[in-house]
Formats: sequence, C-alpha cells, structure tokens
Amino acid sequence: MLKTKVTVPTALINREHWAQFEVNKLYKKVCLDRLEEKINYKFRDKSFIVQAVTHSSFRQNVTDCYQRLEFLGDAVLDFLVTCLVFSRHSQYSPGQVSDLRSHYVKNETLASVCVKAGLEKHMLHMADKLQTAIDKFLNRILEDSNMDDVNIEEDEVEWQDVDVPKALGDMVESIIGAVYLDSGRSLKTTWNVVVVLMGHVIEETMTDIPIDCVRKLFEEMPNKVEFIKVPREEDDDTAKYEVRVEGLPVLVGKGRNYRTAKMAAAKLALQKLTYVNLC
Amino acid sequence: MLKTKVTVPTALINREHWAQFEVNKLYKKVCLDRLEEKINYKFRDKSFIVQAVTHSSFRQNVTDCYQRLEFLGDAVLDFLVTCLVFSRHSQYSPGQVSDLRSHYVKNETLASVCVKAGLEKHMLHMADKLQTAIDKFLNRILEDSNMDDVNIEEDEVEWQDVDVPKALGDMVESIIGAVYLDSGRSLKTTWNVVVVLMGHVIEETMTDIPIDCVRKLFEEMPNKVEFIKVPREEDDDTAKYEVRVEGLPVLVGKGRNYRTAKMAAAKLALQKLTYVNLC
Repeated sequence: MLKTKVTVPTALINREHWAQFEVNKLYKKVCLDRLEEKINYKFRDKSFIVQAVTHSSFRQNVTDCYQRLEFLGDAVLDFLVTCLVFSRHSQYSPGQVSDLRSHYVKNETLASVCVKAGLEKHMLHMADKLQTAIDKFLNRILEDSNMDDVNIEEDEVEWQDVDVPKALGDMVESIIGAVYLDSGRSLKTTWNVVVVLMGHVIEETMTDIPIDCVRKLFEEMPNKVEFIKVPREEDDDTAKYEVRVEGLPVLVGKGRNYRTAKMAAAKLALQKLTYVNLC
Repeated sequence: MLKTKVTVPTALINREHWAQFEVNKLYKKVCLDRLEEKINYKFRDKSFIVQAVTHSSFRQNVTDCYQRLEFLGDAVLDFLVTCLVFSRHSQYSPGQVSDLRSHYVKNETLASVCVKAGLEKHMLHMADKLQTAIDKFLNRILEDSNMDDVNIEEDEVEWQDVDVPKALGDMVESIIGAVYLDSGRSLKTTWNVVVVLMGHVIEETMTDIPIDCVRKLFEEMPNKVEFIKVPREEDDDTAKYEVRVEGLPVLVGKGRNYRTAKMAAAKLALQKLTYVNLC
C-alpha cells in the first residue's frame, strides 16, 4: 500500500534541538493553538501546522513553505468531496455532480471558508500586497453582498468581480494536507476537519446545486442572450464582458480576466432578471 | 466515515432476474473476462464493469453509462498518484510534483494506457465517429512517432498534434472507479489495478519528469522565443500557432484548440533544436 512505501514522520528539515525550539516559537508567534481549536484537531507534530501556515514570502529555516502540503491537501480534499457527492447525490446528472464538486474545491469557496473560520490571522507571511488583498477580500465578505447597490435604472451597469487572494484557499488545502499526514494518513480524521471547516457549505448545497451563472442565464433566456468581449484598452488591467439580454439594459461585468468578467456579467443579468420579475 | 454513509452495493438499475441476465449477456458480448485478466481484477458484481465500459451512445437498460464512475475514478486516481508523487519525490519542487501529477492523469497519458492494455476493444458504444477517432489514434500509437518525417530544410514546417479521443482516457478512469466500488472502496486494491495499468508510465518517470514543452523551450532559449497565434480561417476547424525561435525556420503547430497547437509548435521547436545541436 502507498502509505507504507515512504513514511513522512515530520515536516522538520533539521532534527536538531534548536529546530524544535524554533517550531515552538513560530507556533506561539501566530497562536496556532487557537487555529487547532478552530479546526478541532491537535497536532502531534507541530512542524506540520507551522509548515501549513508558512507562505513562500516568509523565510523560516525549520520547515518548507506550504506549497507541498497544499499540493497534497488539494488531492485529499478533492477525493473526499467526490466521495461525498457521489454517495449523496446518486440522482444527479454527471454535469450536476461535477458542478457541485467544483463548487466545493474552487478557490472562491475555500477562501471564504478560510476567512469565516478566521484562519488567515495565523498565516506567516511578509507580503504587503497579499495583506492588502486579504483586507479587501475581508471587507467584501463583511459587506456580504454589493449587489444590492446596483441601480436598475441606468443604461449600462458595471459590476466588478471579487478579487479572491489565492493564498487563502491554498492555506485551507495545506491545513488539510497537514492533518492528513499528522494523523498517520487517516482519511477519517481528515474528513472530520473538513466537516468542521466546510460543514456550512455542504449543508447549503444539500438541496440547491450551485450552478454556472453563464449556463443558467442561457437556460433561463434561450436565444435571448448575447455575450460580447470588450477589447482591453491600453493600460487597463481589467477585462470586461458585455451581456445583452432581451428586456434589460446593456450590462457589463468586470474581472481580472475574461472568465471572471463573463461570470460577473451573467451574475448581474440573473440578478436583474429576478428584480424585473419581482416588480 | 464517508464510506459508511451510503453504500453502493451494485450498479444495477433494476434488481429483477432479467437485469442480471442482461448484465451477463453484455459481459460476454464484449469479453469482459478478458478485460478482467488485463487489469488483474475479478469483479464480484459484474454490473460495475458493464457500467464502466458503457459509452453514452450505447443504450442498455441495466446500468447507467460510465460517466458517474469516471467522475469517481478521476478523483481516486488523482488522489493515489498524488500520494505516490508526494512520497517518492520529496526533493522535487512544487512545480515539478505538479507537472508529474498532471502527466499521470492527463487524457493523452490515460488514452495511451487504455490502448496499450487493449481496453478499448471492450467498449460498448454505437458512435461511428468515435470508432474512426479511436482507429486513427491506434494507428498513430503504432507509428510510435511521426516526428522523424519532419524535413528540417523547409522554411515552414507544420506538425499536427495527435487527436486523442477523450473516451479512451475516460474509460480508464471509469474502470478505476468501478474497481474502487466493487472492492468495497479499498484504496489498496484499486492501487494494485492502477499499477498493473500504469506501472510502465510510473517507471518511465522515476528519474525524468515529463515537462511542459512550452516552458522548456523558454528555459532553453531565454529571450529568443516568440509564439504567435494564427487567426482561424473561415471553415477551418484547426487552430494554429507559429513559433519563432532564433536560428530556426518559422514552425507551425496545429491542434484542435490553441492550447494543443501551441504545445505542438513547442514540441516541434524542441525537436528541431536537438537536431540542430546534433549536426
């Protein structure tokens, strides 16, 4: 069996006494005992959780940064949620189970999971830009939704997609990878932590499958939807997509790239359609 | 634990006697006993293997088509190879382990695994186009490599990427999903089947990591490589990418989409560079 081939008993790069001392210092520095409470798991080997919260911008000399644990945690999480979706939703079509799995493991979801549990407070990093992005994302989450401010009267409406720092989702994956290794590769123990962190997401989707907004818009308004890519202006980092829907003004979605801009435009249109139907 | 939540004891849609009879008929029709020999696994419940080889174009009334098993098998395989890569290659960078995992699970690799084991002979389908694509792919595999025919003297060289039928890779994943369920969700048993099917791929990559050709080209010829997207002509399904490398003629890669066309162009350039260096 795989797990017997190579054991990974510790994440420590150096086994000397000072290394363990350093791990304990870092553990205290970002209050990892509080993080352990939040995920309801106590690490036998603290070096795993120190590694799981170490961003590549933070130089410490006792473990690697979290990228390898994230690589492992990503696959563990994907496997666990696939088993869940496969078992629970036997009546769903292949497209639907695939949408549901994507929803659980995508960065937007994991980043929300991260800040809802307050895990980001424990990240070891030295990147100012990352901190600014995290702060912005936290504000956006606090606002809950900025969609209410949209004015239906205007001819052209813009909506900017949320900028989700990848590091937040990565950290959830690395913590899952760390638990998996520290628990002696126990999928059961790892699943318990996933449930603590993502239980609310799993509950929310028990009956409603999160859908692809672009697909939903085409389904709701067949033959009445047209997406138009707006060419980028010079010196403009933002990608824009127009969506023209019969009976609505021209709507514009903005994003870091055309994929998110298109999604933003579709979201906006769906929200408008609901508003129009309610009036 | 997940596996105790919902058990999936059979893939049969209908438990009546005739359904079992139908399963046995289909099992014999495409010689699934031979397939079992090829993967060194004997199914307790034949309905799983019948489902695993049933393409959506083939209408039978005892199991679903393989799409749900493929969804599950994809995650099981990804998890198993991630554990392997993580454990075996602890010295590799995060980028390298990620490249290696992608190599194991990408459709091109799984499709080759499928035809090398001769699994495609057992597929239940009614799609002529699919059969033509499979035959073409088989011929290409038999040719081993068409790169030797490239004439270095010409000013512009084209190379068409191999058209890999997605159904072949899907079938490997669905078989892995079927083994996982039939074995009572045993990862150990499933891993044994993965090793039978993919052992040669794993061995080949023990020391050499398969790399991203586009990245390798940029690494080999820093600041001397330019990729240019060729706009699609009307009525032309083929995507084309030019690559201009200092000291080489203009090379063109073709593919079903721009991603594969760019890859084909990069492969061609790397092959040319090796040729030039040898002369």
